[in-house]
Parts: sequence; structure tokens; C-alpha cells
Amino acid sequence: MDLWYTEEHSKDVRFSIKVNKQIYTKESKFQRIDILESEEFGKILTLDGLIMVTEKDEFIYHEMITHIPMAVNLNIKKVLVIGGGDGGCVRELTRYKTIEEIHMVEIDEEVVKACKEFIPKTACKLNDERVKIFYQDGLRFVRTKENEYDLIIVDSTDPFGPGEGLFTKEFYGNCYKALTEDGILVNQHESDYYTDYANSMKRAHKRIQEIFPVCQIYQAHIPTYPSGHWLFGFASKKFNPLRDFKEEEWNKLNLQTKYYNTKLHRGAFALPNYVNEMMVINEDE
Amino acid sequence: MDLWYTEEHSKDVRFSIKVNKQIYTKESKFQRIDILESEEFGKILTLDGLIMVTEKDEFIYHEMITHIPMAVNLNIKKVLVIGGGDGGCVRELTRYKTIEEIHMVEIDEEVVKACKEFIPKTACKLNDERVKIFYQDGLRFVRTKENEYDLIIVDSTDPFGPGEGLFTKEFYGNCYKALTEDGILVNQHESDYYTDYANSMKRAHKRIQEIFPVCQIYQAHIPTYPSGHWLFGFASKKFNPLRDFKEEEWNKLNLQTKYYNTKLHRGAFALPNYVNEMMVINEDE
Repeated sequence: MDLWYTEEHSKDVRFSIKVNKQIYTKESKFQRIDILESEEFGKILTLDGLIMVTEKDEFIYHEMITHIPMAVNLNIKKVLVIGGGDGGCVRELTRYKTIEEIHMVEIDEEVVKACKEFIPKTACKLNDERVKIFYQDGLRFVRTKENEYDLIIVDSTDPFGPGEGLFTKEFYGNCYKALTEDGILVNQHESDYYTDYANSMKRAHKRIQEIFPVCQIYQAHIPTYPSGHWLFGFASKKFNPLRDFKEEEWNKLNLQTKYYNTKLHRGAFALPNYVNEMMVINEDE
Repeated sequence: MDLWYTEEHSKDVRFSIKVNKQIYTKESKFQRIDILESEEFGKILTLDGLIMVTEKDEFIYHEMITHIPMAVNLNIKKVLVIGGGDGGCVRELTRYKTIEEIHMVEIDEEVVKACKEFIPKTACKLNDERVKIFYQDGLRFVRTKENEYDLIIVDSTDPFGPGEGLFTKEFYGNCYKALTEDGILVNQHESDYYTDYANSMKRAHKRIQEIFPVCQIYQAHIPTYPSGHWLFGFASKKFNPLRDFKEEEWNKLNLQTKYYNTKLHRGAFALPNYVNEMMVINEDE
């Protein structure tokens, strides 16, 4: 059986994976959800045909979106995850005993159901007693919140389809309001390489920069995302991700990670010139 | 016209690029050489069907293989490039006025001819008066040299086909002998992600480590190479790539680069845990 999944990284670039079988497919109210099984990457979750998670490298994305902000403020008690229906982000957060509450707002309950059944590797901690899941639109949810969360993680799809509202200025403004004075906002920030992704990235960065006094970008190597060069946004009301980095304290926690480490934390913020130029980063932030 | 070039990153993973036209193809004595023209990446050089250079992102590879060692020892006068027939590595080296001689040993004259004709973007400095090209087997060439070069850059193909000898212990031993006491060896070091590449990388690292007192790995994001997470080896007789890094002096040269910068120099050596574990890097080196 010669079955191949293909994702278009641009109109002229395709990434294809040999698939053993399709183990789940559903057209939910919001998007098409598929789970594929492959030799090279294990199970793969796609939404509207785009890779969200593979068992082989999901650890890179999920470690980098959680441990970077946690290592800057180890006093984070209450966290909001927007999106993240696969559960990988929540899994990493539950490793911190100091976190008291994790709210996850996922628009599509079907994603959570499918991952709980077929990708327990990421969904394994969604039943942790500190976790409360809201099946709602993240944009609306966050509108009603004020001074409540120490950390908001936007683990969204790309800004096409259901994730679109999570890249707007209104949304970032509401996040600012929903955060405490120690608040940090981390979001998946698309990529710098292919034009459509780079445009989303630049737009998002500009909007966040207009609202948050600290706004930096960091990077990771995620081979199954377009170009493999993936970016995250770190925005906050006061914490600088390098000057306020609690390197020693984080290492004392003795968390075992497969990608993240405290040397890499610093390295992740050292962007190539061509990426810096795209964003005109303010170095004094 | 729907014409697609496809590279297999593993037996189950394919990367495909829409091609406008094939502008050159030749079966040389050593390998098959092709140059393709594409919308997304500009011109593309492939050897035996594998991407070596694309006009869109060649700067990443060529900057990272040259500026990292140069920024560690700004007194480098004589350089040997092994492979590198596209000329990109030589182009970056010629930007240093302090370099007096560049020897390039390329086994396949046809690669140089083709790049001079069709990819002047990389081949533009092969006629620099400091450059001397030897069309020979790099493995044999380096055997006859002793205490001659301050820097050897191994800009080879993968260790399958003509590049194979450039990943052997004998070769690394001869490089050691060919280097002066200040000598640095930098090589393209494959990738950590897909099994075949990761095995080559681990083997190469072990062999270099047996010969050179300093042996470290650094990384770059190269979207058109398998997984996009590409590694380079930095080996030397005495210089440590971070402790001996001439950050300030390098910045004073005021070279304009598109990827490399001195913050990124440090960041490039901060590898993910899973890569460190593959190589059991000696942190005290």
C-alpha cells in the first residue's frame, strides 16, 4: 500500500510523508480533523490538512512554548492555554508543582476527544486536577477576563480558518488585560521563510509590539513545520526573557527535557540577521 | 507545465519543489550534476539528485561554515577548502582582507564549470587572485600536506558517493597534520533528525573527537536540507569556539551578513538535549 500525505508549504513546495493508515477522520463544526499513522513520525494530527503534532517531534514545540516563559517567572500560579487541544502544552505545564490552575480554552471539543483516544502521548495530562477545559472561542473567553492569569500561551493553528481571530490586535489587547502585572504572553509565531508565513509573523509581531512593553521573538528547529525554522513570541508587562531568566533556579527543578535546556534558552533568542530585519526588533526592550 | 523535483529525506519522507525548467544536466566522471530553476528557491544545484545549493538560502550554509571559525581566529592567513565547487564558501572567505591564500580542492571540475556559468551568485569569487583551485581528490591532496593551513573547511557532499572518504578517520588525521598549531577544522556535519543522517553525524563526531583536542558541534536552520536542522563540526588544536571567540574584533570588521551575527555565534553552539545526548559532548573541552 503506497499511501502518502502531502502538505503544501508554499504553492511550489510540498512535504510528503508515507502513511501506514489513516486512523481517524472527522469534519467537525470548525475544521477537518485527521489522525494518520506513519513509520517515520508515529501518529500525526492534522487540522484542515496541516500538521499540528507528530509523535516524533511534538516535544520540541511543546517544551519551547512552555519552559521558556516558566524559566523567566517561576512564580507563575495560574495559566491560560488558548487552543492546544492535543494536550501537549498542558502536559508540560503540569510538570511544575507550583502551578495551581490551568485553564485551557479550545474551540473544538472534537480535537480533544480524538487526541485523548488516539494520541495519549500529548493528551495524557488533560485530566490533571488542576486543569479545567472550556470549549469556547478563545477570543471571546479572554474578553471577559481581567488581571487573572500570570501566563497566557496561545497554542493556535495558523491565522487561516478558526485560528484567525487569535492573531488580531483586539485579541492581544484582551490578553494584556487578562494578565496580572507579572503577566507573560507566549504565542506560536509562524515562520520567517515562506512568504505567507512570514507575512503572518510580521503582522503578529507588529500588533503585539503595540500593546506589550516587552516583545521578543525566539526560535526552534521543528522539522515537520514549514521550513523547520519556527518562531515563538514572548511578550510581557515587565519581564525580559534574558535579563530576568532564572537559569539556576530552573536547573534546580531538575526537570528532564529532550529539547529545552538553559543554554539553549539564551541561544533561542539569537536570531539570524534576516529575521531581525523583518521585524525591526527593539534591542533595548 | 507541472514539473516537480523531489528529494527523499528518508525512505518515508519526500520534499518536492516546483521547477520552471532544468537548465543543466550532466553525468560527470564522479556524479550526476543538475541545475534547476524554480520560483521559490531560484536556481538549485543538485548532485546525484540531492540539493547542495539553492539561491534562496545558500547564504545560511556558507556564512555559518566560514564566519564561525574566522571569528575565533582573525589571524587566519591560509585556508584549504575541500569540496565547495559551487564557490559559496570561497566567496565568504574572500571578504576577509587578512586571508592571503585560499586553496580549493574539488574532485569534480564539471561542478565548478556549471556553477560559474549558471550560479554566479555563489561562484563569483573563484577568480579572486588569492584563490587556487586543484581538481583532485581531497583525501589524497591533504595527505601530502603538513603544518600548512590555519583553517580547513570540509564543504563536502554526504558520506555516500564521492564524499565518502571525507568522513573517515584517516582523512581527519591527515587534516590534523596539514593544520598549523593554530589550526581549525570545520566540516558540514549532517543532521540529527533522520536516522541515516544522524548515524553519519555520530560516526563523524566520534572520529574527529579521537584526533582533535577540541571538538564541538554547532547548528543552523537550513530549510532546504533534510529536516532543516543542520550541524557543523568545529575541531581545533587549541581554540575553543566560545572561550576564544573574538566577538568585538569581528564586529569591528563591519562585514554585512544575512544570517550570521555574534549573538547567533554563541547560540549556534547551544544544542538541544537530544542532540547532545547523541554525541556525549565533553563540556570541558
